[in-house]
Amino acid sequence: MKPTTKKRSSKAGLPPGSLVHIGEKKAEEVEITVFSFNESGLEEKEIKLVEECFIYKEKENKTWINVEGIHKVDILEKLGACFNIHPLALEDILNTDQRPKIEDFGDTIYIVLKMLSLSQNSFNIVTEQVSIILGQNFVISFQEGIKGDVFNPLRERLRANKGKIRKSGTDYLAYSLMDAIVDSYFLILERLGERIEYIEDELIQKTTSKTIKEIHTLKREVLFLRKSVWPLREVINNLQREDSNLINESIKIYLRDIYDHTIQIIDTIETFRDMLSGMLEIYLSSTNNRINEAMRTLTIIATIFMPPTFIAGIYGMNFKYLPELDWHWGYPFALLLMLITTVSMLVYVKNKKWI
Amino acid sequence: MKPTTKKRSSKAGLPPGSLVHIGEKKAEEVEITVFSFNESGLEEKEIKLVEECFIYKEKENKTWINVEGIHKVDILEKLGACFNIHPLALEDILNTDQRPKIEDFGDTIYIVLKMLSLSQNSFNIVTEQVSIILGQNFVISFQEGIKGDVFNPLRERLRANKGKIRKSGTDYLAYSLMDAIVDSYFLILERLGERIEYIEDELIQKTTSKTIKEIHTLKREVLFLRKSVWPLREVINNLQREDSNLINESIKIYLRDIYDHTIQIIDTIETFRDMLSGMLEIYLSSTNNRINEAMRTLTIIATIFMPPTFIAGIYGMNFKYLPELDWHWGYPFALLLMLITTVSMLVYVKNKKWI
Amino acid sequence: MKPTTKKRSSKAGLPPGSLVHIGEKKAEEVEITVFSFNESGLEEKEIKLVEECFIYKEKENKTWINVEGIHKVDILEKLGACFNIHPLALEDILNTDQRPKIEDFGDTIYIVLKMLSLSQNSFNIVTEQVSIILGQNFVISFQEGIKGDVFNPLRERLRANKGKIRKSGTDYLAYSLMDAIVDSYFLILERLGERIEYIEDELIQKTTSKTIKEIHTLKREVLFLRKSVWPLREVINNLQREDSNLINESIKIYLRDIYDHTIQIIDTIETFRDMLSGMLEIYLSSTNNRINEAMRTLTIIATIFMPPTFIAGIYGMNFKYLPELDWHWGYPFALLLMLITTVSMLVYVKNKKWI
Amino acid sequence: MKPTTKKRSSKAGLPPGSLVHIGEKKAEEVEITVFSFNESGLEEKEIKLVEECFIYKEKENKTWINVEGIHKVDILEKLGACFNIHPLALEDILNTDQRPKIEDFGDTIYIVLKMLSLSQNSFNIVTEQVSIILGQNFVISFQEGIKGDVFNPLRERLRANKGKIRKSGTDYLAYSLMDAIVDSYFLILERLGERIEYIEDELIQKTTSKTIKEIHTLKREVLFLRKSVWPLREVINNLQREDSNLINESIKIYLRDIYDHTIQIIDTIETFRDMLSGMLEIYLSSTNNRINEAMRTLTIIATIFMPPTFIAGIYGMNFKYLPELDWHWGYPFALLLMLITTVSMLVYVKNKKWI
Amino acid sequence: MKPTTKKRSSKAGLPPGSLVHIGEKKAEEVEITVFSFNESGLEEKEIKLVEECFIYKEKENKTWINVEGIHKVDILEKLGACFNIHPLALEDILNTDQRPKIEDFGDTIYIVLKMLSLSQNSFNIVTEQVSIILGQNFVISFQEGIKGDVFNPLRERLRANKGKIRKSGTDYLAYSLMDAIVDSYFLILERLGERIEYIEDELIQKTTSKTIKEIHTLKREVLFLRKSVWPLREVINNLQREDSNLINESIKIYLRDIYDHTIQIIDTIETFRDMLSGMLEIYLSSTNNRINEAMRTLTIIATIFMPPTFIAGIYGMNFKYLPELDWHWGYPFALLLMLITTVSMLVYVKNKKWI
Repeated sequence: MKPTTKKRSSKAGLPPGSLVHIGEKKAEEVEITVFSFNESGLEEKEIKLVEECFIYKEKENKTWINVEGIHKVDILEKLGACFNIHPLALEDILNTDQRPKIEDFGDTIYIVLKMLSLSQNSFNIVTEQVSIILGQNFVISFQEGIKGDVFNPLRERLRANKGKIRKSGTDYLAYSLMDAIVDSYFLILERLGERIEYIEDELIQKTTSKTIKEIHTLKREVLFLRKSVWPLREVINNLQREDSNLINESIKIYLRDIYDHTIQIIDTIETFRDMLSGMLEIYLSSTNNRINEAMRTLTIIATIFMPPTFIAGIYGMNFKYLPELDWHWGYPFALLLMLITTVSMLVYVKNKKWI
Repeated sequence: MKPTTKKRSSKAGLPPGSLVHIGEKKAEEVEITVFSFNESGLEEKEIKLVEECFIYKEKENKTWINVEGIHKVDILEKLGACFNIHPLALEDILNTDQRPKIEDFGDTIYIVLKMLSLSQNSFNIVTEQVSIILGQNFVISFQEGIKGDVFNPLRERLRANKGKIRKSGTDYLAYSLMDAIVDSYFLILERLGERIEYIEDELIQKTTSKTIKEIHTLKREVLFLRKSVWPLREVINNLQREDSNLINESIKIYLRDIYDHTIQIIDTIETFRDMLSGMLEIYLSSTNNRINEAMRTLTIIATIFMPPTFIAGIYGMNFKYLPELDWHWGYPFALLLMLITTVSMLVYVKNKKWI
Repeated sequence: MKPTTKKRSSKAGLPPGSLVHIGEKKAEEVEITVFSFNESGLEEKEIKLVEECFIYKEKENKTWINVEGIHKVDILEKLGACFNIHPLALEDILNTDQRPKIEDFGDTIYIVLKMLSLSQNSFNIVTEQVSIILGQNFVISFQEGIKGDVFNPLRERLRANKGKIRKSGTDYLAYSLMDAIVDSYFLILERLGERIEYIEDELIQKTTSKTIKEIHTLKREVLFLRKSVWPLREVINNLQREDSNLINESIKIYLRDIYDHTIQIIDTIETFRDMLSGMLEIYLSSTNNRINEAMRTLTIIATIFMPPTFIAGIYGMNFKYLPELDWHWGYPFALLLMLITTVSMLVYVKNKKWI
Repeated sequence: MKPTTKKRSSKAGLPPGSLVHIGEKKAEEVEITVFSFNESGLEEKEIKLVEECFIYKEKENKTWINVEGIHKVDILEKLGACFNIHPLALEDILNTDQRPKIEDFGDTIYIVLKMLSLSQNSFNIVTEQVSIILGQNFVISFQEGIKGDVFNPLRERLRANKGKIRKSGTDYLAYSLMDAIVDSYFLILERLGERIEYIEDELIQKTTSKTIKEIHTLKREVLFLRKSVWPLREVINNLQREDSNLINESIKIYLRDIYDHTIQIIDTIETFRDMLSGMLEIYLSSTNNRINEAMRTLTIIATIFMPPTFIAGIYGMNFKYLPELDWHWGYPFALLLMLITTVSMLVYVKNKKWI
Repeated sequence: MKPTTKKRSSKAGLPPGSLVHIGEKKAEEVEITVFSFNESGLEEKEIKLVEECFIYKEKENKTWINVEGIHKVDILEKLGACFNIHPLALEDILNTDQRPKIEDFGDTIYIVLKMLSLSQNSFNIVTEQVSIILGQNFVISFQEGIKGDVFNPLRERLRANKGKIRKSGTDYLAYSLMDAIVDSYFLILERLGERIEYIEDELIQKTTSKTIKEIHTLKREVLFLRKSVWPLREVINNLQREDSNLINESIKIYLRDIYDHTIQIIDTIETFRDMLSGMLEIYLSSTNNRINEAMRTLTIIATIFMPPTFIAGIYGMNFKYLPELDWHWGYPFALLLMLITTVSMLVYVKNKKWI
């Protein structure tokens, strides 16, 4: 969850469109799978050599090429050359620090999104960049290649010919990929929400300095999430207003739906922020309150014991001529003196409302 | 009042338009009532089988179908099929996490709002989602089905043929439903306002840590309220600018009225927020003030009693050769010494303005 | 200055345009005065029966009807019926919780403003709602009816035929009413400003917990003022852009003038807010500073007196075999020991910069 | 630097365009100087009677009339009548509480700005309002009349015929006046900047409560500056977009230049605000840190000396049968006991990380 | 990193377009290098006399003139005269306090940017202003002249004829210069990011007052960076929308790319700000927490030792008639009394939850 500018500077000075992979290498091999389909049939294939993809360029079928692993620059170069992907788009696919955005290159539309997941034990958000190239009869998606993605239900729908997915065009396929990613955010929100509520309950019972650190960790995760989701809103908004023949008018109602989801996610994130800020405020004011209580206790104890200790000190002095020491009622007198002093001090302090 | 994303993730991967009920099941049965009316007559009917509604589709009368309970997906499917409700609208009706919004599907307009109420004892806001489908000659409203809604006065007006409600079109009916919901917010605001003022008075008299927690609870309620009302503004604004033949031009002045109410509600919510923040500030600064007072008391007491106790300690030592002990005026001398030390310390400390 | 939603909920469920008086009843009787004038003459009259007003509807003279007291719904209904006031406007006139706004009903323009005054002793802002109905040849103004308004100089100008007021149309009269109200805000700002400066001076000299409460009270008053003035800006702006034949083009330069005043008032309010926030910051940091000073004093005193008191305690022990007690230089030795301990502790603590 | 609403209320109730001087009287006499010039010649003249100005109205030369001292209403009235100044503009010239603004009256453009200077010793910003009336062949500028203005270099350029000033029209002259005023802000920024840095250095070395007060004073000065400069941005922006034949197209590039300066000034002001806020934060956290250090010191001292003092107290008791007192090794035993107790307490407290 | 208004005031009063160098003199000599190239050839030359540049004005080749050192006003004047640079642009080139901006003068476009670098040891950002003049067949860039710039890779590309740089027009060259500058920001972000993370780790382990000062220093650096980058966004946006024949339509896709980079940089800066603010919050709450712990420790110690010390004091009094002293079980009785008092006090205090 570090600010993801690592190694970005390694590209400083290179001409625009230079293909350099920026980010962690998250997969060993590059895996390419192809779904080629129309309403009546579906071909699913694992590709070994990138050149095998090229035939799909000219086919009438709609084709979805999914590339997992983007660290091999040559594979991307070949794909780009075949499918007419703009060099700047290729550059952005390789740069995993990308902000969600959309770019219309005329014959292709390039969309970049973040696929998020929570690591199992900690509440650490793991990001994977997903790039989608939408063409007339193809969609190419690029993932960084962490094992497991959110597209499996989509693959099932393709195989089973469920819903409109095989009947509609590539724009609907691209929409479905985006929808799958946005839907997966809700799971993260739910888990974060549960964690926040758990800590909130803990906060009311007792507060350790561990709590404060967890609140701050969650706050940072929420900030990070916000940074990933916020630009999405604009991306989908732009996609809606896009005047491209790649995007059918009939698809726009679905884009509006996904837009509403994004707004809802942002809303929830803002609520989380407010809750976490509120928790920090509770923590601070309850700490202050406890300092106050401890302070008052100490003051009361000092007020009770300091004056009589002083009096005891006086009659513990060894002066030869200390008349009270010889009185018969000296001891009770001293005790009484202590009592009176203490009580009157307490009363005075209380009246002044100092404690 | 938890962030309402519960179970939303259960839909991840399903195609758009999949009908899954998301949220708590708040009613046992689904209750459907129909008001079919025109200026001269009114038919009110409780429906057992959803199919009984279908005849109203073709009637010339205006029809209001109110559905309480949305957990039975098949009933909604049938209604949707008959009244041409868009699958995405149906999906949103079932999803009780919806943000207030408006969607124009051409032959129907879909509006979703939040009906709010305060639970009796605590100041806990209970939400119920209300969806309104506005068609040419019908309005269908969907409630989650908590017993009791804010539409009863409206029903009375329908029965008694009071005001314009039976004379006007379905757009006026839809407006009246929205107006009833927005009007009910004022009651919540009033009760919250009274509570805030009560706590404010309490805060001035004495502050316990319970107060701080209640302030925070109220703050969260106000935040929650804000989240429900804020998008409403945009909803009604969009409705005003809607260029649909479902919405008569003459109705727009009423929409402007409801818009003004929404603005007023948002204004009051913002005032509440400011008041609650101000109260937290008072709390913090008064706690700090009390730490300060206790601290000063303690310092003064220590300044008064530590020096003479030390002197008493000196003359309590058992040295064989401690000349002062044998003086005749030793005891008064020691007392005087104590007095001088204490007074001069106090004066010094006061002058330095340290306490 | 409580959030003014009192009794607003009593209208929940009523059809729009229902006339219910919301707010305090601030006058016993309803007083209606009429000024009917043109450039050459003026008729001033106190009205007993509301029906007496009706003749002015058809007169060629310009007429200003001022109604003080809005709690008698029937009077408003009759006026509304005669002068074609829209039911929604009438409803808003009766609802004293209204936000400043403007509504163009075609043949009349409805403007609602807040007339503010400070109660004599406390710095409590008293609000009175003023509604203005601007028609072709009449202006009707409604006040809640607290004795005394800011329109007296205007009445004098009417009687004396000073300035353009009798020469111009009803739009100029309506402008003059608004101008009188906005001008009166400056007086409140001045008195608040003086009070803020007075407290600021007090804050520098000494701070009691009363000060902090007064700062907060002023902050709330300023917030309240802001809430009343802020929407005014939009009101006057809308009035300027109004494309109505009720508002002459030549009047717009005066509206721009009043707009500038509003901006200036808002500016001053924001300055007040910043000043009050700054004062709270000073208060907090000076309290913290004083805790720090008291703390350091206490630590120094403890550092000075605890070690020698301990040493005195040692030589106050009654052990049979305590060799130092029998030394001839035992007493000076003990005093020296105390001095050395104390000084070295103080030096150590100072060096560590702990105090 | 008080919020400048003084005496503004004295105008309440007067008709618009009433000429009343609002603000301090900053000059004894009204001084009027005239520069009448064209490319080839220049006439400079001190005016005694305002009527002497009138001839310049009809001259072909360009004329700059500079009026210092605005408290004599009759002089302004005569000037206004001769040069066709709109009554509302005259009213604004007299009201020194004006916000920077621009008003286009058709045949004249009225611009009002603030001329700022720092008083010599304190960092107190002194404001003087400057009004500029731009006509076809004349510019009239009004100053409140504090001795010394920023226009002297401009006068020199006029006399020496340096630059474009005598060759260009009155719009260039008006621009030059504004430019001179805006340029003078940089001097104030520089002096404020130096002061802020000086205090920042002081803050790192040691902090007195005087520092905190100076930070707050500077913060208020910066706020005041911001209030004067912020509207300027809009003023110059409006002037650029003004579609008036008084403003030549060729002048607009200069207005853009002045606009850039204004943006830069606002930028610097915002930086100052951030710096001052940061300084307050440092102050607060360092105070807290010092409370913490003092607290820990006190706790350590108490932990070191309280337990052995108690043990010494025990063996200072005078019980007849207190066996340890008679032991031969009693004294060393007691000392050892003290050491053990203290060390174990310190270890315990350290382990618990309480101090 | 001081607010860069130094000496800006020295220009107050001068006419617009006056050429005065404002800022530090960062180079001894002025160095001018010329690259004159077309697709087939390249001429690289170091210029001694500024007049040598003039021939490139009329050449068909594209020319890049790079000027390092801007303190010699006459050189700039001559260049400006030859290449038709507008006086206001020349003035801005000389003023190193410039905000990033773009100005279209018709036959040239003037762009000003900030080149940033981090000083080696401290995290101090060093600024160098870069001005770019884009003409039909030339680009002139002005640097303040600190040794070493970010253009070397660009020079290599020119010499090696790599990429599109020699094939494209001067607009592509200007874009490449801007791209090189923006790319170099990433390096600064990375180093700042590493530093922030390092301090964050340090903060969790232990906090000294040095940490807090470094956080504040970083915060100021980030603020400074933000001030330099923020206007860049608008600059590039304006350049994209520029309707000038100097900027080819085909270049706009590259400008969009650079715009995305700028947004990403701003995003990262905002993340840094949030992180640093969060760190300050952690610091404050952990300091408060430690005050609380120390306070509680002190209170517990006082509660444990004050009461028995007082009791020991009582039996250390020297009264003749103090019966307990003569009891045989007096000593154990006293010890028991101490134990009971202490334990009951601790229990009482714990129950009250005061500590």
